[in-house]
Amino acid sequence: MSLARRSPERLSTFSDGVFAVLITVLVLELRPPEVATFKALLALWPTWLSYAVSYLFIAIVWANHHHLMRYATEATPRLMWFNFAHLFSVSLLPLSTAWMATSELAPQPVSFYAAVFFLVNATYISLVHELIDRAHVDDVSRRERRIMRFRSIVTLCVFGAAALVALKFPLIGLGMCICCLIVYLKPEAPGAGT
Amino acid sequence: MSLARRSPERLSTFSDGVFAVLITVLVLELRPPEVATFKALLALWPTWLSYAVSYLFIAIVWANHHHLMRYATEATPRLMWFNFAHLFSVSLLPLSTAWMATSELAPQPVSFYAAVFFLVNATYISLVHELIDRAHVDDVSRRERRIMRFRSIVTLCVFGAAALVALKFPLIGLGMCICCLIVYLKPEAPGAGT
Amino acid sequence: MSLARRSPERLSTFSDGVFAVLITVLVLELRPPEVATFKALLALWPTWLSYAVSYLFIAIVWANHHHLMRYATEATPRLMWFNFAHLFSVSLLPLSTAWMATSELAPQPVSFYAAVFFLVNATYISLVHELIDRAHVDDVSRRERRIMRFRSIVTLCVFGAAALVALKFPLIGLGMCICCLIVYLKPEAPGAGT
Amino acid sequence: MSLARRSPERLSTFSDGVFAVLITVLVLELRPPEVATFKALLALWPTWLSYAVSYLFIAIVWANHHHLMRYATEATPRLMWFNFAHLFSVSLLPLSTAWMATSELAPQPVSFYAAVFFLVNATYISLVHELIDRAHVDDVSRRERRIMRFRSIVTLCVFGAAALVALKFPLIGLGMCICCLIVYLKPEAPGAGT
Repeated sequence: MSLARRSPERLSTFSDGVFAVLITVLVLELRPPEVATFKALLALWPTWLSYAVSYLFIAIVWANHHHLMRYATEATPRLMWFNFAHLFSVSLLPLSTAWMATSELAPQPVSFYAAVFFLVNATYISLVHELIDRAHVDDVSRRERRIMRFRSIVTLCVFGAAALVALKFPLIGLGMCICCLIVYLKPEAPGAGT
Repeated sequence: MSLARRSPERLSTFSDGVFAVLITVLVLELRPPEVATFKALLALWPTWLSYAVSYLFIAIVWANHHHLMRYATEATPRLMWFNFAHLFSVSLLPLSTAWMATSELAPQPVSFYAAVFFLVNATYISLVHELIDRAHVDDVSRRERRIMRFRSIVTLCVFGAAALVALKFPLIGLGMCICCLIVYLKPEAPGAGT
Repeated sequence: MSLARRSPERLSTFSDGVFAVLITVLVLELRPPEVATFKALLALWPTWLSYAVSYLFIAIVWANHHHLMRYATEATPRLMWFNFAHLFSVSLLPLSTAWMATSELAPQPVSFYAAVFFLVNATYISLVHELIDRAHVDDVSRRERRIMRFRSIVTLCVFGAAALVALKFPLIGLGMCICCLIVYLKPEAPGAGT
Repeated sequence: MSLARRSPERLSTFSDGVFAVLITVLVLELRPPEVATFKALLALWPTWLSYAVSYLFIAIVWANHHHLMRYATEATPRLMWFNFAHLFSVSLLPLSTAWMATSELAPQPVSFYAAVFFLVNATYISLVHELIDRAHVDDVSRRERRIMRFRSIVTLCVFGAAALVALKFPLIGLGMCICCLIVYLKPEAPGAGT
């Protein structure tokens, strides 16, 4: 067929559009306080905090998505559907962050929050599998791949454990989530001197 | 005229922007429950379900749109207007899904839902006609074209029938819609060994 | 300076993003009716109508913007600011359409509506001036240019007159607006056999 | 590694998506007045004014962002995170503008407004540092760089001072902000004959 190959560019454009909407969804919730004082502004702290945290974590997810999509050479149907699943789980982040903040870190909302990150991580692993594990060896060194796989599985287990721990000790569960996210601040496989 | 040809890229960028907004419209409806329990979260199931279903079906429509636009070589006025009509009918999906869910599958909302899919399919057929039926024979095999045309007409009839059937038996009407969508999970013409 | 020239691509991407949000703003207003009957759906007709009309007219504006931007070779500061002014006036369309519909075509909302289109047209003329009148003669024939300038000035005057007429006879004012829009259905200069 | 270099294009696409959403966030607030008179429309002036002002200032920020990103040759992690910080501070503009307008220029909202611009400017300086100060000398003349650095530091100080002054004299504080923004209307370093 003389058709142009299915370039991954439109997949990126679409994903960027979805990320752009998601990262700003919570800004729609920010309403100017009715009284013109800083105190009134600070009284809205759960909304502020949840916006900032949700923004930061979606930024981390975008950075990792951006890093991964560089390996894409073709928008295969599998890649497309894994990407849709990933974006879907990311779209639950603003809601779950807001619920956690408004409930002031109650056990079940924190557990739900960890569960959403479990989903985000699981769908990210399927993207890693599709894009990196299938790539030729000379593109990604064996060592880098092993590190990325190891990191994914460990963080997935920690997010799962955090969802359970949070039911009893929400603060510890939240701390476990934050630790995992710090690991992803740098999208490259750690120790694999790019 | 020494002008650059009307490249279909901006048409894709614009469409992707619209799809990105539409696929996340219902996420704006998802509000954290006021009580911090899983039970309160589950009580919102109609909103949840309609978000998930609407997301999935818009994803299917996007995948087919993406597949089709690969055949575009020029943004002709006809293509542009067929595309606008397609995006318009897609934009009714979140609303109709939400109505179906909140009415707990009442006859008339399900019928309206099937009617919206009838529209989405009809405008998709006009895009197929514009992009594939007019393409040169060596791009798309005669067999593939025949299969795509056959699939379109059958699903269009089924959606139309579903809109009528749903007025009496909403569950059967909904089932008919879902069957048609499964057929479109793979955008390529089935049986046309790409 | 060895910098890449200021390509107009990012201007287009940004404009497409704004258009995509604007064209779907009114879909956010569409709420599923509380009763599960077609009658309840039809009772929302002002919202429906204003969404459909606003969608159609923004689509026309996009088509003309898309046509014009093909002439852009560089994102000059002037072009950027004319484009911002154009997008700003387009962003008032959903609101003014909704106001006209909910007031059931009262004189002042229709007049406001015509005034917004006057603005959209005026900023469009400044884009035409920037992109076409300054282009080299061999790109755009003298005849085409004369036709485009003539069309712009006539429609601008009609929109202005419509804003005044609507204060007394809203239906006639609305009719005048619709006539002008029909003229822009085909972005190319009419009679200038592309 | 045979991977494609991390092109800055996706960074621009994503940023444009975020800007497009932010610039139209306040248009979602514009509601048609309930009475069909111009008087009712004018009574909503704080919302109108804050939309227009916020639109204009985000447009200025976009123009400067667009100008700066032309210097980007690679989407390094540092650039990505500075960009996220910049977009975050820009996302606070609509809210702070609306608060200033609804409070009718009360001291503390104006001070908050100046503080947000302080943040926008500080993150912009980090982008300038990353993109221009690190560029090779032959790309950006030493003189141009000195002017850009000087302009940034001066406006940053003025925004900071404005946040303090506004607590006593809100109108003067607002005037100081507007002066700084005028300086950025032309993204190029002033006096550095491009």
